[in-house]
Amino acid sequence: MIGGGTGAFIGAVHRLAAALDGQYELVAGAFSSNPDTSRASGQLLGLAPDRVYESYQELIEQEKARPENERVQVISIVTPNHLHFAPAKLALESGFDVVLDKPMTFSLAEAKELAAVVATTGRRLCLTHTYTGYPMVKAARQLVAAGTLGTIRKVYVEYPQGWLSKFEEGGANKQAAWRTDPARSGVAGAMGDIGTHAFNLLEYVSGLQVTKLCADINTVVEGRQLDDDGAVLLRLSGHASGVLVATQVAAGEENNVRIRVYGEKGGVEWQQVDANTLQVKMLDRPVEIWRTGGAYAGSYAAHNTRTPAGHPEGYLEAFANLYRNFALTLQADLAGQPAPPEALDYPSIEEGLRGMAFIENVIASGHSIAKWTEFTV
Amino acid sequence: MIGGGTGAFIGAVHRLAAALDGQYELVAGAFSSNPDTSRASGQLLGLAPDRVYESYQELIEQEKARPENERVQVISIVTPNHLHFAPAKLALESGFDVVLDKPMTFSLAEAKELAAVVATTGRRLCLTHTYTGYPMVKAARQLVAAGTLGTIRKVYVEYPQGWLSKFEEGGANKQAAWRTDPARSGVAGAMGDIGTHAFNLLEYVSGLQVTKLCADINTVVEGRQLDDDGAVLLRLSGHASGVLVATQVAAGEENNVRIRVYGEKGGVEWQQVDANTLQVKMLDRPVEIWRTGGAYAGSYAAHNTRTPAGHPEGYLEAFANLYRNFALTLQADLAGQPAPPEALDYPSIEEGLRGMAFIENVIASGHSIAKWTEFTV
Amino acid sequence: MIGGGTGAFIGAVHRLAAALDGQYELVAGAFSSNPDTSRASGQLLGLAPDRVYESYQELIEQEKARPENERVQVISIVTPNHLHFAPAKLALESGFDVVLDKPMTFSLAEAKELAAVVATTGRRLCLTHTYTGYPMVKAARQLVAAGTLGTIRKVYVEYPQGWLSKFEEGGANKQAAWRTDPARSGVAGAMGDIGTHAFNLLEYVSGLQVTKLCADINTVVEGRQLDDDGAVLLRLSGHASGVLVATQVAAGEENNVRIRVYGEKGGVEWQQVDANTLQVKMLDRPVEIWRTGGAYAGSYAAHNTRTPAGHPEGYLEAFANLYRNFALTLQADLAGQPAPPEALDYPSIEEGLRGMAFIENVIASGHSIAKWTEFTV
Amino acid sequence: MIGGGTGAFIGAVHRLAAALDGQYELVAGAFSSNPDTSRASGQLLGLAPDRVYESYQELIEQEKARPENERVQVISIVTPNHLHFAPAKLALESGFDVVLDKPMTFSLAEAKELAAVVATTGRRLCLTHTYTGYPMVKAARQLVAAGTLGTIRKVYVEYPQGWLSKFEEGGANKQAAWRTDPARSGVAGAMGDIGTHAFNLLEYVSGLQVTKLCADINTVVEGRQLDDDGAVLLRLSGHASGVLVATQVAAGEENNVRIRVYGEKGGVEWQQVDANTLQVKMLDRPVEIWRTGGAYAGSYAAHNTRTPAGHPEGYLEAFANLYRNFALTLQADLAGQPAPPEALDYPSIEEGLRGMAFIENVIASGHSIAKWTEFTV
Repeated sequence: MIGGGTGAFIGAVHRLAAALDGQYELVAGAFSSNPDTSRASGQLLGLAPDRVYESYQELIEQEKARPENERVQVISIVTPNHLHFAPAKLALESGFDVVLDKPMTFSLAEAKELAAVVATTGRRLCLTHTYTGYPMVKAARQLVAAGTLGTIRKVYVEYPQGWLSKFEEGGANKQAAWRTDPARSGVAGAMGDIGTHAFNLLEYVSGLQVTKLCADINTVVEGRQLDDDGAVLLRLSGHASGVLVATQVAAGEENNVRIRVYGEKGGVEWQQVDANTLQVKMLDRPVEIWRTGGAYAGSYAAHNTRTPAGHPEGYLEAFANLYRNFALTLQADLAGQPAPPEALDYPSIEEGLRGMAFIENVIASGHSIAKWTEFTV
Repeated sequence: MIGGGTGAFIGAVHRLAAALDGQYELVAGAFSSNPDTSRASGQLLGLAPDRVYESYQELIEQEKARPENERVQVISIVTPNHLHFAPAKLALESGFDVVLDKPMTFSLAEAKELAAVVATTGRRLCLTHTYTGYPMVKAARQLVAAGTLGTIRKVYVEYPQGWLSKFEEGGANKQAAWRTDPARSGVAGAMGDIGTHAFNLLEYVSGLQVTKLCADINTVVEGRQLDDDGAVLLRLSGHASGVLVATQVAAGEENNVRIRVYGEKGGVEWQQVDANTLQVKMLDRPVEIWRTGGAYAGSYAAHNTRTPAGHPEGYLEAFANLYRNFALTLQADLAGQPAPPEALDYPSIEEGLRGMAFIENVIASGHSIAKWTEFTV
Repeated sequence: MIGGGTGAFIGAVHRLAAALDGQYELVAGAFSSNPDTSRASGQLLGLAPDRVYESYQELIEQEKARPENERVQVISIVTPNHLHFAPAKLALESGFDVVLDKPMTFSLAEAKELAAVVATTGRRLCLTHTYTGYPMVKAARQLVAAGTLGTIRKVYVEYPQGWLSKFEEGGANKQAAWRTDPARSGVAGAMGDIGTHAFNLLEYVSGLQVTKLCADINTVVEGRQLDDDGAVLLRLSGHASGVLVATQVAAGEENNVRIRVYGEKGGVEWQQVDANTLQVKMLDRPVEIWRTGGAYAGSYAAHNTRTPAGHPEGYLEAFANLYRNFALTLQADLAGQPAPPEALDYPSIEEGLRGMAFIENVIASGHSIAKWTEFTV
Repeated sequence: MIGGGTGAFIGAVHRLAAALDGQYELVAGAFSSNPDTSRASGQLLGLAPDRVYESYQELIEQEKARPENERVQVISIVTPNHLHFAPAKLALESGFDVVLDKPMTFSLAEAKELAAVVATTGRRLCLTHTYTGYPMVKAARQLVAAGTLGTIRKVYVEYPQGWLSKFEEGGANKQAAWRTDPARSGVAGAMGDIGTHAFNLLEYVSGLQVTKLCADINTVVEGRQLDDDGAVLLRLSGHASGVLVATQVAAGEENNVRIRVYGEKGGVEWQQVDANTLQVKMLDRPVEIWRTGGAYAGSYAAHNTRTPAGHPEGYLEAFANLYRNFALTLQADLAGQPAPPEALDYPSIEEGLRGMAFIENVIASGHSIAKWTEFTV
């Protein structure tokens, strides 16, 4: 693991998610750019001292230098955005498969370069867009793909948060500090952090692609350097349209990411606050409540479910599904077999590339006086 | 009553709402432009045959000709949009107070003329934007106005329906027929029918005014003549912003109109599907569930509540609140006393004017290639 | 109307419910045993002074003395329990049809005598068990009766309130005073007031009858004279069993009466807080959300629904359904035609009789040391 | 691990829960009484072949024979009920700490003997009553213990399931087979499997003890050997009372275990379907929605929460909390320090003893014709 030292948020989540299914064992780390912090974190996590490194370069070099069956196989990179590209590139080029936190890179240019690296090295990359790991999100995608709703017409996706309602970046909140800092986050704040999640969820569930967008991007809290709020009108492939909302100043909200997709014959609705439920709304019929563990919910949901219906699966299970599917894919690779489609169902370089394009396009549209901005990669 | 003959939808709703509190008695009507239908409807409603008229002109003239204490006092106009202006104008000018279904008129020009008539005649006009009649919507407005949320930053309002997901206007559905017909509805379909409700709700609860808008207006169903779908980015007075969604092609949805308002310190959320609940979400505190009938819910909610907490009040009660408050205002007028603020709290000519301006501005924006269109009245 | 003077709760509800559909006009009343209060109430309601009476006897006698087409047709009795029997008996014997608030009488003995009066006079009696007036409760009954759930096995019904959590009867709360007073309420407090509602709902929806019961009856608040809490195990006809809970000391609860019925193949769930929804839970299938106004919801729901799906109908509409169906039945009687089954679907003397038997049986069981008490009428 | 071979349900859950926090590593197992199954399961789980044993006796003996720092420290027993006592006793007596699935033993007599073994050996035992591991259940307990609700008056707990609505035990459903078999489950079916969960939850949250009970115990499905349904009236310490419902024939239900506790001043409500929410209902105030991760939710909730508010934690996290707290307690033991109260907050021998007493008392009450049966241990 690169990053994720004491006090970091997402690193701990990665560790929990990786541990859940017993497919990964944490054996080495460069947990911080501060060697002391890295060492202390490694100790706390019970790692052998000789596998706690002072830098990501050291980690990659030394692990590569170890015998093949004694080195790490997958490297998780859980640093702030500006520190994604370099370690990911080095890791891939050094023969490691990579799990990378989102958004994929600092800029679209980096994303394109990373895509080239992936193509050249043939290594695997998993991008942790957690929300697509929920069983009921997968059920929604499968149902849409099967044509149950008919041709898709409208998609609404939203991600309201309230945690940046005040100026938090001046104080002890490490996460607030880097996420609102253009030097570490990139050109976008809210749009990069949660807008990309919403965007990914939209394209994943609907099976459509954004083709044009019209964005209202705001920095609401005084003194903040990046956007903390935005709303985007969308044109989608297949003559559909949609709305994407992402805000970090909806005071009083937690993380209720939510998606609704409507086709000619019906719609589906999912929201994280009730993550084990998918509402299936067919025209002129009673709404159906699909539940995690329901035998009717399709093969993708079943593959990503651990407990019987009625026992809620949560955020860590969704996150773990990404790790598990990635592991299953790598195992199939090792076995020289094609990975089954359910295993391959994790976000990867293509989703990362589109996510970075979303960031750049949406910020550009925010600055534009024209209504529509073409979505270009 | 003008309009609302057998088979019409909203006329029956007006009658139920007016009857609930015993403040109105239906004594005369011109229920249809077809004299036979009007007569039959009047008979069904138990009216004296001599007070069932063949046209609105006849109704207004003949009622005016009756002795003052034997004539109607208030005239409800529940016809399609293109038949609002003329009877409303005539009624006002003949000395009657008027209840008028929304949107107020066929065009903004008519709305301005009607506003002049109201100003000249000094008569009262009540516009039936039902959703602002719900006790918990009133609680939300009062709470926002009291500054509980701090300065308002974001407003999201949406009105998703699915009833026009197919081409319904060719068949027996009278309502579908006129609402999608530009000759009877005006320049807008969904935006006129439900977009104006959403717009009114937004300005009512937030206390803010739309200043600019950027609309994506669509006609999704093939063959339809007016818009059946739209999404609008909004700039609001006081540096706030928002999003308005109104669609009639969200297949599987009923009428779940919903509003969320966020300020510096917290937010509120209301939706019709759970109409007796207002979620009050203060930053870093548990969400509070305010309920119709709760002693804490403010004077406006209390004034508009009929039953003790826990007994749900519905759409007809909300509608009846408009009628009742209008009656209380008229009674105060008759008594030569100032109406109390709770009684005056019904949508009137000003809201109607802004609603018609919304329709024209939003359609203009939909045609514009510029991002922002100024909201002008 | 007998009872329901200024300050009373349920009288106002009866008036609103009766007014809603325009089937009733309030023309006469004896609103209080205090003549001044009666007179003042009548004036406030806009009645002709000569039809505001000083006692129920006077009302019944004088109205009977009026010409047939100028007298009241239906008498609503909305007094406390101890004042139900005498006016109801006199009204029926004087040729009037009667609407009576629940529980039907002060005692089972009175109930039996009233049943005899109904049988002898051939007049109609409507008992206002409101909750069976909700469209989705009717849908549940129809669905159960159609065998959709298979043989019924379990019924859970509960009515939790919190309004008597403190000793309220000492102060200004008129309703608390009489409902906790054995001289006015009868042998039961909570069991009479809300237990009978739960009991009626259970037998109505399930189509089964209670055959044995085992009750835990408590007076929780110190100083209170009647029960304010109870839970009852039930044996039902057809080898089913159930649980009934009614409490007035569930501090923080409103009136969330709720019923769940399970058969071999599935279950249904309804609760007043979400009154327009019926959950239909078939084994191994997604739960279906049936909604008021849904075309699939059956003829009884449709008959008792006023607004299109998505516009919530509330407590007053449910109450009004009792009044309306009673009116439709009386109109059929007047027309010399059989009333249609949907019109006849209102609680009547039989339900009142069983409700009074429930009260006496459940209190007897509460005092018994034997587990099971036979349910006898 | 003892039990939990391929095809078993709860063994896999134990493994996931133990893995989540990285506090446990599975190194040895006797996964089945069938040596082949045990071996195959061990291989699938990646264990060293020499630590996959053919019987629990072999496991305990051979592990004990290993050097202290190379042997297992904790033994998880996840077998059917009749195979809890013997391995647990042997493990404790051999110096191992034990995690044991519920109900604790086959009979109350065994439970008492096991309690004596725990007392004699001084080893630790953790009983996996999962539902008390949820953060919001812990918040409820802490809030009740702090007196926020005043003296507790009423407790309602229910556990409705539908999975045994048909005769499932004849077929391939291993779990159905043993849970309905008196030779493997003990004297109770539903009451043992889920009634004990409900009972434990009730005593945990309320802080009260059951003193008397009155049970209606049923075997609904024809041919079944044990109860599959029951409802119980309860007397609790401190003059409180309650109702416990547990059924496996509520067709269409999943596992929506739910508890409501009411005191003089307010109530709390929690249900598994919305596991990250605790409703706090104070008299005459808006209901508060407490959420996992909320800063206001108390120290016990905080200690048992892994992710920020808004990211749902599920059943596995609740289960893992038991394992983690047990590990923290054992670590404190090893360090020779007193375990902090939050770590000690896992179900143990005392809860197991009371749970087994519940089973025997509730079945006895089911057979009794007297209303009340004393709760004896």
